[in-house]
Amino acid sequence: MKTICIQSLAAIIALGMILPLLASPSTAGPGKDTDMSEAMETIIAAALADDHAYMRLGELCDLVGARLNGSPGMDRAIAFTQAAMREDGLDNVHTETVMVPHWVRGEESARVLSPWDRKLEILGLGGSVGTPEGGLTADVLVVRDFDELETRSAEAEGRIVLFASEWNGYGRTVQYRSRGAQAAARHGAVACLIRSVTDRSLSTTHTGIMRYADPEEDIPRIPAAAITVEDSELLRRQAQRGLPIRIHMEMGARILPDAASANVIGELRGREKPEEIVLVSGHLDSWDVGTCAHDDGTGVVLAMECARLLKTLDMRPRRTIRVVLWADEEMTQQGGRAYLAGHADELPLHIAALESDSGCFPPAGFSVRADSTVADRLRELAAPLADLGAAAIVPGWSGVDTSFIVAEGVPGIGHRVHNDPYFGYHHSPADTFDKIEPGDMAANVAAITALIYAIAEAEESLR
Amino acid sequence: MKTICIQSLAAIIALGMILPLLASPSTAGPGKDTDMSEAMETIIAAALADDHAYMRLGELCDLVGARLNGSPGMDRAIAFTQAAMREDGLDNVHTETVMVPHWVRGEESARVLSPWDRKLEILGLGGSVGTPEGGLTADVLVVRDFDELETRSAEAEGRIVLFASEWNGYGRTVQYRSRGAQAAARHGAVACLIRSVTDRSLSTTHTGIMRYADPEEDIPRIPAAAITVEDSELLRRQAQRGLPIRIHMEMGARILPDAASANVIGELRGREKPEEIVLVSGHLDSWDVGTCAHDDGTGVVLAMECARLLKTLDMRPRRTIRVVLWADEEMTQQGGRAYLAGHADELPLHIAALESDSGCFPPAGFSVRADSTVADRLRELAAPLADLGAAAIVPGWSGVDTSFIVAEGVPGIGHRVHNDPYFGYHHSPADTFDKIEPGDMAANVAAITALIYAIAEAEESLR
Repeated sequence: MKTICIQSLAAIIALGMILPLLASPSTAGPGKDTDMSEAMETIIAAALADDHAYMRLGELCDLVGARLNGSPGMDRAIAFTQAAMREDGLDNVHTETVMVPHWVRGEESARVLSPWDRKLEILGLGGSVGTPEGGLTADVLVVRDFDELETRSAEAEGRIVLFASEWNGYGRTVQYRSRGAQAAARHGAVACLIRSVTDRSLSTTHTGIMRYADPEEDIPRIPAAAITVEDSELLRRQAQRGLPIRIHMEMGARILPDAASANVIGELRGREKPEEIVLVSGHLDSWDVGTCAHDDGTGVVLAMECARLLKTLDMRPRRTIRVVLWADEEMTQQGGRAYLAGHADELPLHIAALESDSGCFPPAGFSVRADSTVADRLRELAAPLADLGAAAIVPGWSGVDTSFIVAEGVPGIGHRVHNDPYFGYHHSPADTFDKIEPGDMAANVAAITALIYAIAEAEESLR
Repeated sequence: MKTICIQSLAAIIALGMILPLLASPSTAGPGKDTDMSEAMETIIAAALADDHAYMRLGELCDLVGARLNGSPGMDRAIAFTQAAMREDGLDNVHTETVMVPHWVRGEESARVLSPWDRKLEILGLGGSVGTPEGGLTADVLVVRDFDELETRSAEAEGRIVLFASEWNGYGRTVQYRSRGAQAAARHGAVACLIRSVTDRSLSTTHTGIMRYADPEEDIPRIPAAAITVEDSELLRRQAQRGLPIRIHMEMGARILPDAASANVIGELRGREKPEEIVLVSGHLDSWDVGTCAHDDGTGVVLAMECARLLKTLDMRPRRTIRVVLWADEEMTQQGGRAYLAGHADELPLHIAALESDSGCFPPAGFSVRADSTVADRLRELAAPLADLGAAAIVPGWSGVDTSFIVAEGVPGIGHRVHNDPYFGYHHSPADTFDKIEPGDMAANVAAITALIYAIAEAEESLR
């Protein structure tokens, strides 16, 4: 297909007229759908034969690194992805400034003082305040859950509360990370520790956002950090044995005035309906540990690759494909909010918005947040993805950054993958490029690019 | 079998006379072997129905913790295991003092300064010197192996050498941990980093012993530490891209005068030939990270459990079972050496010496370091372990602590397990009790106790 370029539309049309004649008479109704299937097969074959996305993710990890809001790493990421999209020959490459929370981790250290002295690995939660100068030292109350904290409220005063909450799926377990500190503070605790939110561990700490109570509630803002599953289980068992547990912890975390960041945007302008937009996206910001290859280096690279691959194949579709790399997914989603505010007029022209933020694992299909006619149409368009394992279209969540425009009626598409190992890496120093399988990356490029192409090319609009 | 006690030898003899009469006439030659099989089945059933060893390992991890040479943890371990063996009613419980190397880790920290500033997790190697006061800062030379270091010798001067050596089995990979620092120092390096010796990682550091060159060689003793697989791969790729890599590292490690430690010993005295000894052992010392549940809390507990279970079952065998918990396996094996020196007169009476030091995983049988007649006899004795998967007797290494007496002719028996995940935990903070499966522990108690009983009870001596 490399010989078919946008300038040779006549040749494409001629090919479209000849192909039906060449088709086996036993196949029913060759025509537009067949053309689309063939185009998608071309994209899939090209994607599966290419390691460009994998190599680019390596560059993002090695040349840019982690991409925390307001950090030099995020600044590097904005420059790198703009340069990459210009190198790819995309149209209208630019940034849109977004003000984002600016939390800095600072130095962190902790020791268990009792039952015996040893170093304790901690990783502060995003948004946490630091400890007082010189750190804090307190006895520890270990609880399994919020209910146990309620029951043992009298023991929490002046203590560090450790939520040694067992993994119970991400959605249920993460509440101790997001709300543990405010719950502990309500009972008079001076700090909060949580068991890292993960289903597997080799002495691994996992960060992520935490939230304090609303200011009007007047609940103290206490420092919050994660410890490893191993240390959480050890301290829990020691507490059950009646051993006194005492910890010293120091966290230099600070919250600075909001920083300027940006959504990074590039386009493959549509050849017939450039004003109609099919958005494909991942989030550019990340936590500050590891190099965030899965979360969400993968989504960033997939979104860029979608436009780059079609450009390389000279397969510019009818509608514009807009690549958006979001700022501030991890904290307050200012990127998604700013896009809604800045592109309100354009929203009716957004045909669909895809977000990839589940890591790089074998493709599993797509989840759709739109009415069932959109889902049905997507199911037809996605049929050629069956061999990739990516043809399944299910109703469901379609992504946090796109949720603001999806709430305004833009059909949302979430990228699904078979990501069983994901939470072992998520928000930890283990989220690194060595955890990426090149074949998974290529398969996801194939699935997303072919689907986005189909939506952008289809004669009948999805919306 | 609980009703058969050592005082009722007459009853046992009578039972031995009756059992052949009760046996099916279709089975060939019931008699001594049948009695032994039945006794072993009794032991296996009791072990599989019991969680005592698992619970005791939990106590060792929770009440004692890591057990580095010369540390308070090792002192606690000596006290804990003596008390445990006394509680079990073992005979002749005592310690035998051993002087051991006394290395202390001190505070450790590191930062990557270039290509951008970030924290670098390091874990000093056992026996390493510290950095100069205030740490050291140097550019990094990344090599894959000793050959590449030779080739790039001119680049090593004044640098930190990172051995980013890929996993190639423990035996081949560990040489970078043990000999990396001396190799780097020969080429003028100021410090040595190694990729942690493991086949899997979730941002995990692994320590272990390192050795300097002999003093007469006059090679500088430079600090040596492990970094995670993730960081090693990142730095290696960055170096390949031509990025300048610069690191600051501080290690407070010191080598103090040798410390007093001990082998801890207890016995189940033989009922007929108490002077003949079947030794069963694990090493009590450990590294100083995690709680060393696999390495070698498991061996310690298995050895103690062997004697305890037989005592509980009132199955005191003909020969003495001697439990030995070794000092200083991890550094210089002074425990094994001191035992050889202190028990030289007794060596001809040592019928066999079993060591367990491969972690707690499903049993796989035993490896034997002795002549083939011993192996053949062990194969017969181990036949009843087939249902446990532990009947395989293969020639092989039988353990480092027992190697000193095995070299003097004592048949050595190594405990084998299906330990694929082992090197993910080994010498790391992830070697913790939560990684232990109760069923694996019970199966290993069953296999070791039944085999040791068979050796200690067999009319014909193994040796």
